[in-house]
Amino acid sequence: MSDLQSVLVVGTGLIGTSVALALREHDVDVLLADRDARAVRLACEMGAGSPWRPGEHAEPVDLAVIAVPPHFVAEQLKSLQERGAARHYTDVASVKALPITQAGRLGCDLTCFVAGHPLAGRERSGPTAATADLFLGRPWAYCPTEETSPDAVETLLGLIKLCGGEPVRVGAEEHDRAVAVVSHAPHVTAAAVAARLAEASDTALGLAGQGVRDVTRIAAGDPVLWTGILSGNALPVAEVLEAVAADLTAAAAALRRS
Amino acid sequence: MSDLQSVLVVGTGLIGTSVALALREHDVDVLLADRDARAVRLACEMGAGSPWRPGEHAEPVDLAVIAVPPHFVAEQLKSLQERGAARHYTDVASVKALPITQAGRLGCDLTCFVAGHPLAGRERSGPTAATADLFLGRPWAYCPTEETSPDAVETLLGLIKLCGGEPVRVGAEEHDRAVAVVSHAPHVTAAAVAARLAEASDTALGLAGQGVRDVTRIAAGDPVLWTGILSGNALPVAEVLEAVAADLTAAAAALRRS
Repeated sequence: MSDLQSVLVVGTGLIGTSVALALREHDVDVLLADRDARAVRLACEMGAGSPWRPGEHAEPVDLAVIAVPPHFVAEQLKSLQERGAARHYTDVASVKALPITQAGRLGCDLTCFVAGHPLAGRERSGPTAATADLFLGRPWAYCPTEETSPDAVETLLGLIKLCGGEPVRVGAEEHDRAVAVVSHAPHVTAAAVAARLAEASDTALGLAGQGVRDVTRIAAGDPVLWTGILSGNALPVAEVLEAVAADLTAAAAALRRS
Repeated sequence: MSDLQSVLVVGTGLIGTSVALALREHDVDVLLADRDARAVRLACEMGAGSPWRPGEHAEPVDLAVIAVPPHFVAEQLKSLQERGAARHYTDVASVKALPITQAGRLGCDLTCFVAGHPLAGRERSGPTAATADLFLGRPWAYCPTEETSPDAVETLLGLIKLCGGEPVRVGAEEHDRAVAVVSHAPHVTAAAVAARLAEASDTALGLAGQGVRDVTRIAAGDPVLWTGILSGNALPVAEVLEAVAADLTAAAAALRRS
């Protein structure tokens, strides 16, 4: 497994900053970039690394971690590769077919890129919610293609190990169907239940139990983030939602007959 | 507020035994009954009280707490009243219109009965899951009717106080609509999501996040118990499920168009 010496994290939100903090605990040199200068400053103040100044860093880092929303991964990869910013690249987006397909269309070098997705998160977002142990013991999916070089895979496995994650190798399409079932559709369903609660009487909310708190906790994620995730995984999520809706309709019909 | 000296708990499951344990902490005399002799024995071993032997206890207790499934509350009330077992009666079922209506049809004395519902629970059921602090700070709905005597209400408020619950006065129909939104429909929805997970690939389950654990935790309640609750609150739950299904169908259609 290759030894990571230097990593560039692009996107210092919850996930990117948490990766950076985990790497800093292993004394990896970490450079940080974000289109929001304030987010970089906050991450630096938390000890996550130092700001990336492309002009000053002529030498490519070992690995660039692209931690931006799903629809922007490919163009970020393209731009970083044009600068020769890193020897290897990965991302952390929660959908995987979309960024790989888009990267191919943009003519990115796919030999040194391995798409990745750490299955970890919190309700809070942004750099100040980041923690070095966010990935500890959590699955970290990675999706090499036929073009991916063994070196790129080794480098990503090194990152996952330093973050304490459990690597899970999976095809991009299978990944997207899987997260539709275990994450995206449950999220939309929780939001639909939460929408009923928004209309509920004060009495109803006064009687609310722990179950409701769990449902609304799931629904409390960042809406902008979720819009991107869902539209990036539209068909697999739609299929699961239709199946859940059919089950609920059947349950309602059975109750009306009872 | 009347001082409770003696209480009979009929049904030594999670809720009944927890009520008994809370009362024992205040030195109330507690008698225990259940059609399952083993459940009574377990509850007694936990210090929840002593077995009710109707022949030996000629004197009525201050309050009988009927902690049986919703559909059996009214017939239990009828049977206890025919024995003159208690001066006042309450129940703990999670639906309220059904037992009140059935009790009226059976000709029960409704002046000394106040329907109640402590909003507390655990995934585990049975007497061994019971704890004296189950109701601490939790809402405890109670539904007096026009026939209910002030004495009966005072007695129930005394019970709720000793259990550490927060009394919430509410009409039976409003209660049932409220729990449909905050508890019953979320439960069915969680079960529908869990059903999709049952069909999911091993890969999908390997990638499952915390959100899924929350959803399946809600869905993991006692299925026999839930069948009774849902059929006892069929129309309010059906209405919420239909609304959630409509939202999910619309979300799926929007995703397919995206």
